[in-house]
Amino acid sequence: MAAPLPVAVVGASGYTGAELLRLLFGHPHCDVTGLYARKSAGRAIDEVFRQFVGLSSQTVEAFDADAVANRAQVAFCALPHGHSATVVAALRERGLLVVDLSADFRLRDADEYAKWYGSNERPTHPAPHLLEGAVYGLPERYRAQIADSKLIASPGCYPTSAILAIAPLIDRGLVATTGLVVDAKSGASGAGRSPALAVHLPEAGEGVRAYKVAGAHRHTAEIEQELGAAAGGTDVRLTFTPHLLPMSRGILSCVYAAPTDSSLSVDDYRAALVDAYDDEPFVAVLPAGTSPDTAHVRTSNMAHVSVAYDERAGRVLAMSAIDNLVKGAAGQAIQSMNVAMGWDERAGLRGVAAFP
Amino acid sequence: MAAPLPVAVVGASGYTGAELLRLLFGHPHCDVTGLYARKSAGRAIDEVFRQFVGLSSQTVEAFDADAVANRAQVAFCALPHGHSATVVAALRERGLLVVDLSADFRLRDADEYAKWYGSNERPTHPAPHLLEGAVYGLPERYRAQIADSKLIASPGCYPTSAILAIAPLIDRGLVATTGLVVDAKSGASGAGRSPALAVHLPEAGEGVRAYKVAGAHRHTAEIEQELGAAAGGTDVRLTFTPHLLPMSRGILSCVYAAPTDSSLSVDDYRAALVDAYDDEPFVAVLPAGTSPDTAHVRTSNMAHVSVAYDERAGRVLAMSAIDNLVKGAAGQAIQSMNVAMGWDERAGLRGVAAFP
Amino acid sequence: MAAPLPVAVVGASGYTGAELLRLLFGHPHCDVTGLYARKSAGRAIDEVFRQFVGLSSQTVEAFDADAVANRAQVAFCALPHGHSATVVAALRERGLLVVDLSADFRLRDADEYAKWYGSNERPTHPAPHLLEGAVYGLPERYRAQIADSKLIASPGCYPTSAILAIAPLIDRGLVATTGLVVDAKSGASGAGRSPALAVHLPEAGEGVRAYKVAGAHRHTAEIEQELGAAAGGTDVRLTFTPHLLPMSRGILSCVYAAPTDSSLSVDDYRAALVDAYDDEPFVAVLPAGTSPDTAHVRTSNMAHVSVAYDERAGRVLAMSAIDNLVKGAAGQAIQSMNVAMGWDERAGLRGVAAFP
Amino acid sequence: MAAPLPVAVVGASGYTGAELLRLLFGHPHCDVTGLYARKSAGRAIDEVFRQFVGLSSQTVEAFDADAVANRAQVAFCALPHGHSATVVAALRERGLLVVDLSADFRLRDADEYAKWYGSNERPTHPAPHLLEGAVYGLPERYRAQIADSKLIASPGCYPTSAILAIAPLIDRGLVATTGLVVDAKSGASGAGRSPALAVHLPEAGEGVRAYKVAGAHRHTAEIEQELGAAAGGTDVRLTFTPHLLPMSRGILSCVYAAPTDSSLSVDDYRAALVDAYDDEPFVAVLPAGTSPDTAHVRTSNMAHVSVAYDERAGRVLAMSAIDNLVKGAAGQAIQSMNVAMGWDERAGLRGVAAFP
Repeated sequence: MAAPLPVAVVGASGYTGAELLRLLFGHPHCDVTGLYARKSAGRAIDEVFRQFVGLSSQTVEAFDADAVANRAQVAFCALPHGHSATVVAALRERGLLVVDLSADFRLRDADEYAKWYGSNERPTHPAPHLLEGAVYGLPERYRAQIADSKLIASPGCYPTSAILAIAPLIDRGLVATTGLVVDAKSGASGAGRSPALAVHLPEAGEGVRAYKVAGAHRHTAEIEQELGAAAGGTDVRLTFTPHLLPMSRGILSCVYAAPTDSSLSVDDYRAALVDAYDDEPFVAVLPAGTSPDTAHVRTSNMAHVSVAYDERAGRVLAMSAIDNLVKGAAGQAIQSMNVAMGWDERAGLRGVAAFP
Repeated sequence: MAAPLPVAVVGASGYTGAELLRLLFGHPHCDVTGLYARKSAGRAIDEVFRQFVGLSSQTVEAFDADAVANRAQVAFCALPHGHSATVVAALRERGLLVVDLSADFRLRDADEYAKWYGSNERPTHPAPHLLEGAVYGLPERYRAQIADSKLIASPGCYPTSAILAIAPLIDRGLVATTGLVVDAKSGASGAGRSPALAVHLPEAGEGVRAYKVAGAHRHTAEIEQELGAAAGGTDVRLTFTPHLLPMSRGILSCVYAAPTDSSLSVDDYRAALVDAYDDEPFVAVLPAGTSPDTAHVRTSNMAHVSVAYDERAGRVLAMSAIDNLVKGAAGQAIQSMNVAMGWDERAGLRGVAAFP
Repeated sequence: MAAPLPVAVVGASGYTGAELLRLLFGHPHCDVTGLYARKSAGRAIDEVFRQFVGLSSQTVEAFDADAVANRAQVAFCALPHGHSATVVAALRERGLLVVDLSADFRLRDADEYAKWYGSNERPTHPAPHLLEGAVYGLPERYRAQIADSKLIASPGCYPTSAILAIAPLIDRGLVATTGLVVDAKSGASGAGRSPALAVHLPEAGEGVRAYKVAGAHRHTAEIEQELGAAAGGTDVRLTFTPHLLPMSRGILSCVYAAPTDSSLSVDDYRAALVDAYDDEPFVAVLPAGTSPDTAHVRTSNMAHVSVAYDERAGRVLAMSAIDNLVKGAAGQAIQSMNVAMGWDERAGLRGVAAFP
Repeated sequence: MAAPLPVAVVGASGYTGAELLRLLFGHPHCDVTGLYARKSAGRAIDEVFRQFVGLSSQTVEAFDADAVANRAQVAFCALPHGHSATVVAALRERGLLVVDLSADFRLRDADEYAKWYGSNERPTHPAPHLLEGAVYGLPERYRAQIADSKLIASPGCYPTSAILAIAPLIDRGLVATTGLVVDAKSGASGAGRSPALAVHLPEAGEGVRAYKVAGAHRHTAEIEQELGAAAGGTDVRLTFTPHLLPMSRGILSCVYAAPTDSSLSVDDYRAALVDAYDDEPFVAVLPAGTSPDTAHVRTSNMAHVSVAYDERAGRVLAMSAIDNLVKGAAGQAIQSMNVAMGWDERAGLRGVAAFP
């Protein structure tokens, strides 16, 4: 058996970092040799996250590119967008394979990035020279490119769920690319670990609300980019509505689209999903007539997808359920690493959803 | 002060029945003189619903139209559709004002009713002769007719939320009536009190899913009827997607619509809501830029509405939050009774939402 | 009808403040003439708490004792302990009836206060001269004194629940006052409105834990004081374990005690509760063999109590369920005001629990 | 590498069955060769439990002892008590190693079994001849015996949590065995998969209550048996109070005990836990001053334990958190199999808790 691959997690003190550790600790080919985070530097990981008590008390360190390079061959960066690009650049310079879980390399166009993510202090992309070599880390769409890349921009949680649901229908020209509506529902872990009124248990524990509606959520750009690519390069403008739900994990996306050919039936739409995902290890097309439930993918890297057709109203409804922290973040990043390393894509990701 | 009005609750053993009692026990002009339910007949109400311990131990009785008529002048019927119509007919024959919370008198057209609610054992409407005299009990739309009616068909929870959100924009011709999408999220109390796997806590407590999608949910007919009326009699076909969320109470509806005039701004849409609801005691138009949260209307009869406009994608998003058991059922039924009795519409319904 | 009594809420921006407003807005004899809070000063209450949209947009002001005195005859103070005493003193000097919801006047002994609540910057009680005139605002125990008092120290949520459950058994000498264990479970609203990791939804939404165990929680002092009084002045030392549960509202307390007479049966214990609470408007003794559920008192001022006897192990288990924000805070404060004003004790508090 | 061991799961349609499958599918030395259940016989497992879609569609079969024996060497029985014994007997006769997750072989004394589990139709133990050969499957207490046994009676969830928390203190004579109180809080999955009002989401989703108090819960017998054994054969009578919480998974147990030597400190108690569990792979003693949280063990086989000492009241508080479906059921059963097979005890059970 080959020696395990040394990997580092940069940004180990957030939920995505913790999830990377949960999965990497069980990965058959990896050895986590370094944990990095700013605010938690100097603390043991089992103090930062109590679930590791008795399992690991590795010390979290302040990031240092040379130290990471000395110790690891692959780095997962789970840092806030804007901050990530510099770290990624430093690690790429030192030759590491980098899987970046921030938004910094997801948009192929630096101008688009500036429009959505620019700020007064950082108006333009921090490392535009790396954009061309970056690949959008959705293996179901870019497996070959991921296999050849050294910089994998792992997709956002909402985009993963939306794209997996509807892209096969766009690929095949079955639905229109205008008028798309993505209504997505997320658990609160997507908001991160910093306490805030919006995810304070008494405020959010028994209600639901939409937020950043009408184009205000930055994941809109990413969804549009990928669905535009699916449509062969068309510009896509869609409406994306994220919601916060009283649960920790999971995203359910409902994508509403107009059919391009009104003579088609739900079987035709479902056949497109089956065709797209038949060989995919992490996407299951549900039986006809059933709808996905986030509870059934909780803690796993699986995406459940289905499609319905409202004949009366002439509307296709494509749905998907994922765990936002797994297929929507850490699991997918590891899946991409597996692809890039030429391993079985399922390595370290075979965990069945913990239901109930 | 006038003598209190004697009222009866038929179907007192379900959640809607309990909610009617909660509100009626605090109503300044009503006295609950009879409780009726089939399975719970003979039991005290504080045994059926423990929240009444120390407050009421009235006995639940088997329904008997004459007994009700002897004791009450107004009856609230919270029975399953199909079963309700016969009870309503018996009570109307005896002269009572009936507020029916079932679906039996909501659709004005008996053929539509048969199409959506017909079954092998009951293929047609059980009391079509009463349809003409029935009024759709949404005071914000039919206040004058409710004031004159003896049979008030109190709306469904989903229709209430959807109609309140979008109808003002349709009334004013601001959005198209084709291509409407209603994506609605509901707490589990909407499923009723009968235990079932779909609302078993371990199955449903930490996940979200859509159900009865693509025209399969019967509330579709009711929403279409009312939005068609708003459009001046047009036939409306829309896509309605209900979801079950891990919480007890609340419905959030997002209604997506195409603008009819692309030169309008979000201010114009919001102005339409303000115009429609300015004098309404139970509908609050939220400040511009904010979105409703079901937690803020929990236990109250208020509806919170707002509208956003996605300029990029050319899509209007009208939203509303209600408590499905109050404005979506018991509270609205009482509001209609208040209108019908000529009382202050807020009587018995002034309770502020219990937040958090 | 008499003119309404003008009342002020000082500390209107926390959950207890909001709950006071929810209840006072519906109180038949009160008019809320002033809202005060430090950080929210200058904002409308319906902006601070969205549930008031459409109902009230009173402006929250910075506290000023003279302004309060000019406007109100009764003040409810829902401020942090330590801060409250000074405000209370200023209002008492100006003659107002003050219901204080902080801990500042609950402990009768200034030394005990210093021991439990003292800090470096405030080592001793800030207003010890007021202690003698203060009454512990638990109407079920101190109704007569409350009626005569101008300074009512409204009890803590945990103490309310524990005392209501076990005090009648101690009063009657049925259980030992040594070895008492209070194991209490609370919803997250008890932690207040300031976001913190401990009540961050993803951290706390699906788990349970004890906190401040083994005498670390300051409510211990209050429970011991009152159970000691019940025992006729004995010193009581008990073990109190609070827990945080994944819900917003509610406290369930289980009090374990050794019987003093092993020949007694559960009927004897239950009879003591019935005897104590038979005429109480807000305490219901549950039927024999049943246990309280916080869901059945949610949003109401009711306490549900019961008692069981484990004959095998020789242990009495007294239980109670309350809504921590109502009977455990705002509702009880209003109940005490009603007593002090000579009104029907139930005024403004007749709301039935909103279940489910 | 050795051929995988063929194992069967009897009772595959309940939550414990599903959890066995989740873990066994990832076990490095096992191959699940048969799934058995009565009501779900004939259905594919991914239809019975949607989380298996895309992972397994093995057919669930009706139980047949010969078929199981032909196909498997180890059987996990996750059947209701009373029903299990017959199945276990049939499988033992055919030579299989049986891990029984029912209560049927946990109590060593057939009379005790009859007292707690006897019914009119089954007044006595169904297979008393097997009791002597059965071992209580708590590896932390009976590792050597498990290694030698062919019939492992896997403990109940509540007993596992209570025993792990307090037994080391009893072993060492540090606490009294009289007056013990076990106050335990459980998620709803412990109630099983059959819908019932008590675990109906709207009823149980936002409240907490105790149930089967004062010796009414049958796990009392099991806890007493094991703590009695820890005390060297003393008869132990304790008070056990289980609670239902609004969450799916997890048990938190608080065990209250009187110290035998009042000169000891919390460090002494903690040292006893460390001493007991230092080499245990699945029990972590938390840092001094911290308390366990079920969220930190969710989906994992870890138990988190801690102890506090209330000096003022002279009471020891031992606490533990487990996932009721893993360490409290399926995980522990697999742990015992690992012991019995002579494998690394952690095989298939290395999964870190999925937090948040």
